Amino acid sequence: MDEITFAVLGTGGIGRRALEVSQHKDVLTPVAACDRHGTAIDFDGLDVDELLAATEENIDNEVATDGGAKTADGGVKQRGEDRGVVASEQARPSDDPIQDVIDRGDGIDAVLLALPNYEHDFIPRVADRFVEGDYAGVLIDVLKRSRVIDMLDERAGSFEKRRITFVCGAGATPGFLTGAAALAAQSFVEVEAVDIWWGVGLKSGYEDNRGTVREDIAHLPEYDIETARDLSDEEIEAIVDDHGGVIEFEDMEHADDVLLERAGICDAEDVTVGGILDVRNDEKPTTTTVSVTGMTFDGETATNTFRLGDETSMEANVNGPALGYLKAGVRRNRAGEYGVFGPTELMPGF
Amino acid sequence: MDEITFAVLGTGGIGRRALEVSQHKDVLTPVAACDRHGTAIDFDGLDVDELLAATEENIDNEVATDGGAKTADGGVKQRGEDRGVVASEQARPSDDPIQDVIDRGDGIDAVLLALPNYEHDFIPRVADRFVEGDYAGVLIDVLKRSRVIDMLDERAGSFEKRRITFVCGAGATPGFLTGAAALAAQSFVEVEAVDIWWGVGLKSGYEDNRGTVREDIAHLPEYDIETARDLSDEEIEAIVDDHGGVIEFEDMEHADDVLLERAGICDAEDVTVGGILDVRNDEKPTTTTVSVTGMTFDGETATNTFRLGDETSMEANVNGPALGYLKAGVRRNRAGEYGVFGPTELMPGF
Repeated sequence: MDEITFAVLGTGGIGRRALEVSQHKDVLTPVAACDRHGTAIDFDGLDVDELLAATEENIDNEVATDGGAKTADGGVKQRGEDRGVVASEQARPSDDPIQDVIDRGDGIDAVLLALPNYEHDFIPRVADRFVEGDYAGVLIDVLKRSRVIDMLDERAGSFEKRRITFVCGAGATPGFLTGAAALAAQSFVEVEAVDIWWGVGLKSGYEDNRGTVREDIAHLPEYDIETARDLSDEEIEAIVDDHGGVIEFEDMEHADDVLLERAGICDAEDVTVGGILDVRNDEKPTTTTVSVTGMTFDGETATNTFRLGDETSMEANVNGPALGYLKAGVRRNRAGEYGVFGPTELMPGF
Repeated sequence: MDEITFAVLGTGGIGRRALEVSQHKDVLTPVAACDRHGTAIDFDGLDVDELLAATEENIDNEVATDGGAKTADGGVKQRGEDRGVVASEQARPSDDPIQDVIDRGDGIDAVLLALPNYEHDFIPRVADRFVEGDYAGVLIDVLKRSRVIDMLDERAGSFEKRRITFVCGAGATPGFLTGAAALAAQSFVEVEAVDIWWGVGLKSGYEDNRGTVREDIAHLPEYDIETARDLSDEEIEAIVDDHGGVIEFEDMEHADDVLLERAGICDAEDVTVGGILDVRNDEKPTTTTVSVTGMTFDGETATNTFRLGDETSMEANVNGPALGYLKAGVRRNRAGEYGVFGPTELMPGF
């Protein structure tokens, strides 16, 4: 496959790991990275080691908004004068980092939107900016929430017009696990149930992944996106403490259901997603498993399963698939297929 | 997805089950089926029930060759005057059934080559006929042998020129299981081993699947394609008896290795394929499992696994994926992607 240049919007846990994992992929060249403070662009390829090292203590866990206005302060641990990505020698401060990337979009095959989505139309609105900026290429997110897919679908026409291929939900779940479910469904002519159950141990990744923890808390029955967004770091710590560091989730609103229905595999209501998050151990509290139960053409009922080894971290299971689907998206884009794609429609590249 | 018309070449176990499974898929309309004796074509859609019922006792387990010359006789149990597919009211006898399908190719989106491949260039030579006949569309096989892929690759240029998308090895293995391995590999930056282990219980499907059993015997250390082709039915029965009905295979030459290397996932030599066939029980002698072991970007070694429920029959696991990959192939073809595709490059449709 030909060389692929890509940009990462957001340099939190997911953006940083995506840059790191891309170093293992020959075909992928990261050429831009930004957070709300600034932008690093180099079409010869970013120096990922420098960027990650310089920004290691500067991860911005603040709640993101479109215009750059901050709803909370103190999330960025800063080293020296510069905040966030600007601590890297390769980055320049910017008032509108996303626009910097859009303006250089001609040289960028794909853009990974590794941005938090506490305002649940944030990612769709960022996509609008790429449409308005005449970007043609791949946009890819690793979002989990079902409701975002509909918002993206409403934009399918503009994406097609601008030659944008939008790959949605391409992380661990829905991305990786929904892909596995779509494949496992192939034994059956009727799928009765898809059960997605994940385990994440996040002790050493906790600092890097506060955004993810905040988003997960929004799935607890007592919270939603709005109330989770307004929690202070201290309040989040208190919630984690209340649960002894181990939080179990049931019936999560994950886009797995919508994506599997979209692909014609089963009704959204036949899909359940749950899991256990342990922020005080790296060991997974439970084995991540996808179970697909269905009926074969010859009338048997059976369950096919897909299990991830417990030693695979959440970061590995998000970023490998994200980059794999990014490659698959670029291939579709180059073949002239535009619009919105779920992971169930793409086999990720390696 | 828009309607897809397809033809099946060969009405043995795989061809018949493909027709049957397609009845569960709204989007797929079977419009042609042939064996060496004749051709059934109806662009309004074949009456699959009639065709399967009429030919139930007429399965042709003879060794196929390109020109229609028979190397053995007596394989066809016939009902009435007509042999093979011609027992159906919808079929007409033909001296060159494959040419009948090629001649009507304009109305056929995809052709499933459910033909035995005892001469290991048989399928490639059939593909040549479609190229010569100016067919544009999808050709798909469910072959297992690695060496066929190279022969198809040599033809990639002619396929591209004629706008043919050839999907190879799209059955249970390599198709289904290699697809699972490609997906399971996404957690890793380096894949160390892919281990594919299958179990098939074939008691009630034995009569329908003698061709498959013959091909499997060719994988035993004492046999190869040529010697297996020359075995009489009685000799095959004797081999089965010698093994007490249960035959174990190790280090099979299955195209899984070539296809995974092609997709950049691992070296062919890191892939092992084996399994157990029991022709006297329907219960599987072992659970079909794909294990992918690799290293994550953060240095952990782990194994991801994909397991098929024991109640899923070989027929379900071959034909679901075959039709799923057929749909994916048609999508690629309509988007203008031509040449040779392995299942690792396509997520099958449902």
